[in-house]
Amino acid sequence: MRSDIDRLMATRQLDALVIAGDHDFNPPRHYLTDGAHVTGGLVVKKRDEAPFMVVNAMEVEEAAKSGLHVYTYQDLGWVELMQKFEGDRYRAAVGLWANALARAGVESGRVGIYGSGDLSTILAVTHQLAADYPQYEFVGEQGLTLFDEAAITKDAAEIDRIRHVARRTSDVVRATWDYISSHKQADNGHVVDANGQPLTIGAVKRFIRLALIERELEDTGMIFAQGRDGGFPHSRGEDDDILMVGQAIVFDLFPRELGGGYHHDMTRTWCIGHAPAAVQQAYDHVIEAFNRAVAVFGVEKPTRLMDEAVNDVFEAYGHPTLRQNPATTTGYMHSLGHGVGLKIHEMPRISFMAQEDHFQIGNVFTIEPGLYYPEQGFGIRIEDTVYVAENGELVTLTDVPKDLVLPLKT
Amino acid sequence: MRSDIDRLMATRQLDALVIAGDHDFNPPRHYLTDGAHVTGGLVVKKRDEAPFMVVNAMEVEEAAKSGLHVYTYQDLGWVELMQKFEGDRYRAAVGLWANALARAGVESGRVGIYGSGDLSTILAVTHQLAADYPQYEFVGEQGLTLFDEAAITKDAAEIDRIRHVARRTSDVVRATWDYISSHKQADNGHVVDANGQPLTIGAVKRFIRLALIERELEDTGMIFAQGRDGGFPHSRGEDDDILMVGQAIVFDLFPRELGGGYHHDMTRTWCIGHAPAAVQQAYDHVIEAFNRAVAVFGVEKPTRLMDEAVNDVFEAYGHPTLRQNPATTTGYMHSLGHGVGLKIHEMPRISFMAQEDHFQIGNVFTIEPGLYYPEQGFGIRIEDTVYVAENGELVTLTDVPKDLVLPLKT
Repeated sequence: MRSDIDRLMATRQLDALVIAGDHDFNPPRHYLTDGAHVTGGLVVKKRDEAPFMVVNAMEVEEAAKSGLHVYTYQDLGWVELMQKFEGDRYRAAVGLWANALARAGVESGRVGIYGSGDLSTILAVTHQLAADYPQYEFVGEQGLTLFDEAAITKDAAEIDRIRHVARRTSDVVRATWDYISSHKQADNGHVVDANGQPLTIGAVKRFIRLALIERELEDTGMIFAQGRDGGFPHSRGEDDDILMVGQAIVFDLFPRELGGGYHHDMTRTWCIGHAPAAVQQAYDHVIEAFNRAVAVFGVEKPTRLMDEAVNDVFEAYGHPTLRQNPATTTGYMHSLGHGVGLKIHEMPRISFMAQEDHFQIGNVFTIEPGLYYPEQGFGIRIEDTVYVAENGELVTLTDVPKDLVLPLKT
Repeated sequence: MRSDIDRLMATRQLDALVIAGDHDFNPPRHYLTDGAHVTGGLVVKKRDEAPFMVVNAMEVEEAAKSGLHVYTYQDLGWVELMQKFEGDRYRAAVGLWANALARAGVESGRVGIYGSGDLSTILAVTHQLAADYPQYEFVGEQGLTLFDEAAITKDAAEIDRIRHVARRTSDVVRATWDYISSHKQADNGHVVDANGQPLTIGAVKRFIRLALIERELEDTGMIFAQGRDGGFPHSRGEDDDILMVGQAIVFDLFPRELGGGYHHDMTRTWCIGHAPAAVQQAYDHVIEAFNRAVAVFGVEKPTRLMDEAVNDVFEAYGHPTLRQNPATTTGYMHSLGHGVGLKIHEMPRISFMAQEDHFQIGNVFTIEPGLYYPEQGFGIRIEDTVYVAENGELVTLTDVPKDLVLPLKT
């Protein structure tokens, strides 16, 4: 959590860190600035000292909402740098990094670079920094970065925010069930409204997006995939497709706070009207796997045990698994879950392949077993977001029934 | 435009380019893949050859929508790389870059790196690439990158998409005017609904977001800033503030296609009920500046002439300008405009400081003069998005009247 950052800087031998990036939503910046919405600029932090922001003069009022000290480019010598570099604003921008580090009291040493933005720019900037300011070593991290590691556990304020997102997301999913349920079945198996107009996936997605926005949430690319499409875990579904009775629909919703912020991630699989026997059977296996996963949980246990248990269930029923065949494209072909926070995919990983992850108090993660049979025309996934409470109990944040068959009005 | 990419690679002496980045919306990837929505993966292009995608097996169906050839990680030797690097997925991921370049027929040379995503990761990946595969030089660009340069001019298909965004955005702004106008004035100057309930900025923003979503657009951080807040160009406005008659409201809306895509950018300034004399006078100056800017336009002309003309107008009326005082925080304190496309801020720059930008056929850009007097409790900005047509004419894409006073129902 946030209080770990100085310790995590020490283990990485970082004297300072700089958060760069041009994105409006920049998770590391959001993390250190309490979600201030600025364009461009830097966040600079010397180890064991408070971070500060460096922003364009136009961003001062927004930056001040961070509660951090805010310097403008001018405060840090922008005009002088532009003179020094004869109007070359790119060299001047690089000079601003050095001035900001000096202002932080860091005259040399290792500087970790973080943030979200343009990849080409950061490569050029760090190349120039290395040339102009050899007293610093600018370093990145592949894999588990400092901010990824900090985010493995959430503090109480973060869990409250995720809980609030979870409640609103659950409301939206239940409202979507009711919306579809208010329709009826046409003779050709189409789901239609009172006037006989077919209900499309595009219309359902629009309903969902509006319901999210009404609750100050934003969609980040939901999946609403019917039949064969649902057999490909990341197929988002086709807007023009008409909802049909007896087809499994994988509905994966993972919105976040409006303008960027914390996520909640959940999936339900629905069959409108009735479920074919093959779908019902696979669904029962997924539910059994889900319940087995929850039963296996324990603080300090390796997370892989949870995915091993799910693989055991599926393999006992003869489903292909990634554990048995790393190249499988059917059956259970992804890992069981992942952490959820400012990014939709965080640590811990819940996978039989994750050798080092253990459950800890403050983890917020998904449990999402699934089975995929595109050739048979269906996929199934059930997903809740859960967290590990102070008392070591696993608490679900997702408040939506796990029913497969969604009945129509008539 | 897109057809310039091979030429732009040649001028940069790039043998290949790689688009990386974990973002769902990644402008360079969107540009080359026709907006395919994949998570992670790479786009690889050898100069003078078609690009291809490299994605996780789960992303194959979405990636195929790009029309490009798609390889999975497995196709490019993921399993073998994991064996070679003894299960170190980060080293294996770096190896995948080299395998992808080899598959593209690029055995050595200069490789430009582009895309949008995690900055720390790309620094670590390129560091490892340089160590493991010294036959390649991996390079970034600061300032005008290859994709920025390509985007200076838009082709007909892009302008059609932006026009479509502009029409829908304009509809939303007119609907917002009508929505506010349907309210009435309370004795204390508050804007209230039929039941006497005050209308807040938060409620107006919610109305706007819903109106955008209904039209398959997404807000990217609109400004709706009243009174003194409007005097800070990038203040977004306070949700809890109640709309008041006689206060200038700066309403800057710059949404994009849902899920990431092309933008349209526009601003109107409204005074509900009536406008104070000082606001009306400044508003008239802004409109005069806007019209002067349009009159100055000509293909091949330096873009700075347009901003010079605006500075001339404002300085003639005694307003502080950035041209006269680079540190001013009142008056006209930003540049006149910027290109608009997949990114909200693109080239050309329309600024007296931009020495090298010229107007070209296919430019899509904003014209947005403004005046800011927070101490006097107001700011004003008027902004249209325009493009340069094949016949060299300047055509506005924004279809909203430029009225200052927004009358209430009663």
